[in-house]
Amino acid sequence: MSKQSEPIKPTDATPAKPADQRRLQMADIARLAGVSVATVSRALNGSPLVNQETRERVTELARSLKYSINLGAQNLRLQKNRTVAVVVPYDAASRQHISDPFFLSIVGAIADALTDRGYDMLLSRVDAERLDLAAHAIDSGKAAGLLIIGQWRHHDQLNELAARKLPVVVWGAQLAQQIYCSVGGDNVLGGRLAAEHLLALGRRRIAFLGDAALPEVMMRREGFWQALASAGVAREAALELAVPFEVNVGRGAIEQFFAAHREVDAVLACSDLLALQAIQALRGQGRAVPKDVVVSGYDDMPLAAYCDPPLTSVHQPVALAGAELVQALMRMMEGEHVAPITLPVHLVVRESAPAAA
Amino acid sequence: MSKQSEPIKPTDATPAKPADQRRLQMADIARLAGVSVATVSRALNGSPLVNQETRERVTELARSLKYSINLGAQNLRLQKNRTVAVVVPYDAASRQHISDPFFLSIVGAIADALTDRGYDMLLSRVDAERLDLAAHAIDSGKAAGLLIIGQWRHHDQLNELAARKLPVVVWGAQLAQQIYCSVGGDNVLGGRLAAEHLLALGRRRIAFLGDAALPEVMMRREGFWQALASAGVAREAALELAVPFEVNVGRGAIEQFFAAHREVDAVLACSDLLALQAIQALRGQGRAVPKDVVVSGYDDMPLAAYCDPPLTSVHQPVALAGAELVQALMRMMEGEHVAPITLPVHLVVRESAPAAA
Repeated sequence: MSKQSEPIKPTDATPAKPADQRRLQMADIARLAGVSVATVSRALNGSPLVNQETRERVTELARSLKYSINLGAQNLRLQKNRTVAVVVPYDAASRQHISDPFFLSIVGAIADALTDRGYDMLLSRVDAERLDLAAHAIDSGKAAGLLIIGQWRHHDQLNELAARKLPVVVWGAQLAQQIYCSVGGDNVLGGRLAAEHLLALGRRRIAFLGDAALPEVMMRREGFWQALASAGVAREAALELAVPFEVNVGRGAIEQFFAAHREVDAVLACSDLLALQAIQALRGQGRAVPKDVVVSGYDDMPLAAYCDPPLTSVHQPVALAGAELVQALMRMMEGEHVAPITLPVHLVVRESAPAAA
Repeated sequence: MSKQSEPIKPTDATPAKPADQRRLQMADIARLAGVSVATVSRALNGSPLVNQETRERVTELARSLKYSINLGAQNLRLQKNRTVAVVVPYDAASRQHISDPFFLSIVGAIADALTDRGYDMLLSRVDAERLDLAAHAIDSGKAAGLLIIGQWRHHDQLNELAARKLPVVVWGAQLAQQIYCSVGGDNVLGGRLAAEHLLALGRRRIAFLGDAALPEVMMRREGFWQALASAGVAREAALELAVPFEVNVGRGAIEQFFAAHREVDAVLACSDLLALQAIQALRGQGRAVPKDVVVSGYDDMPLAAYCDPPLTSVHQPVALAGAELVQALMRMMEGEHVAPITLPVHLVVRESAPAAA
């Protein structure tokens, strides 16, 4: 794909300056109606110097031409392209559907934030290995800006989109050598808060569940490691399970992992769904949560409080995330440079890893 | 990257049948050019009987009008507009955000089904009192078809959309005097299955939670009533609470209801979220689930099995629903008449209303 910097195009029609546009249209109408430009001008101004038949003919023609010829300029002038593309990548291997409640709820929050501003949302999905394809919605003129949910494994492709000066904001972690704008939770802090809580409960054999090839997970692990270091607890690579977010894809691996590691007394899972799968696997092997193993999830999805047991989890501010993603994109669409934004997170303590006695 | 050879241009024109379209256009050109239909016909056929100036004028006019008037039909014919609009109405009073996991998961399932067919999804929200506004995505040329999630209180407005011959499919119940196409679960069966299960557990004071002003809820209540009648149990209007689906809107009403009705020994909630709120209210009043009160939800959302306690619920086939909605719409967009579709549901028994001993 081209790395050339191209102008932001809300439509494929070539926008003309309003003044040129008006002259062009007037001349067109005159030519097509078989009358002079002066007659068109008078007709459009309702002048009695033009007979009624001609006035009506010119008026109708003007209306028709406005629909066809002027559309691009009109869109631009009236800011008619009020559509934002939202892309939720899918993993080509698992062909994972949008099922993680966190992804769904962030899509919902974005939809709400766009609705509040009178924008529509064009939702599409691309292969997570080809994030560059997400730009199609802008290139084709369907959308004025683009939100991508997650960085996946292609920081480089996101940088290429930013290099093209496209209005793009990505949900994810802020990384080194990043030229695109991201909005994301404070992943290092989240990982550290969860780990500190598990350590405060006296647990030392903490399993870490998540695929650190994904930037957000990598940073949560960094926070986890910081907490271990502060507590003087050695890292154990064997207790890290690189399991994907996709539901059920990792189920077998999770069961095998806990069967092989009976020493585990705590779990830091990088999503609430992973935490629930861990709890299910542990129970299947006769281990009680939180008595034998305490478990912290991540995301604090809306139903975390209703789970069995209610989940301790790192709260991500989903509604705020939707609002911030949309606001950053709007600013960018107006030509501003927008720096990456990191949103606060906090730990919500519930029964799966209860408060220390 | 590839550029599209032709722009997709929004239009306000309504697609007409090709034959009508052609006649309409001819008469329009004649009127606008100030010549006869015969002259237009001759000019477009390059007849030497028409002078060059008029021929060029008519030809250019025809081309311009095709852009404006014919765009809908052209998009349809060339299958260029591969976008489907999905509208999730919001309640204007509560300004409810997309937060019900059932609505979110059906949006996810639709997104997946559209992706599989190479379509994009234009997600927008309209006031549930103005479902007619949902047609804007088609009228403006942004989308080739429309899916509306829920009938809400405006069966009449949906009928009006269908009367306009717009390709529209609605998620919801099949009603009398319905001329639009709906896809929905078998709500009468679902209500009956849940109620029969509660009755089989020996419960007789069954609370019904849901707003029967909504067609789907009305039909679930119908199934509930059928089960009561079969078991020879009298209906009790006082045990019906018309609470909306919107999260937290009904929380106070639910708490008051259970405080006022200590005789309740079972709950049939019309969504899993309502079931979870009922369980929370009951527990807050010292009543155990399922010991004192058994509870059935509705939807069987993906996390129902992980709830505390795991929820008995009527399973709605969400992935199938997404596929059927999209398939019905595609058939309609190809000009077929599509009859309403009712999808099977079944009861999933878990701890909140366990199997009879």
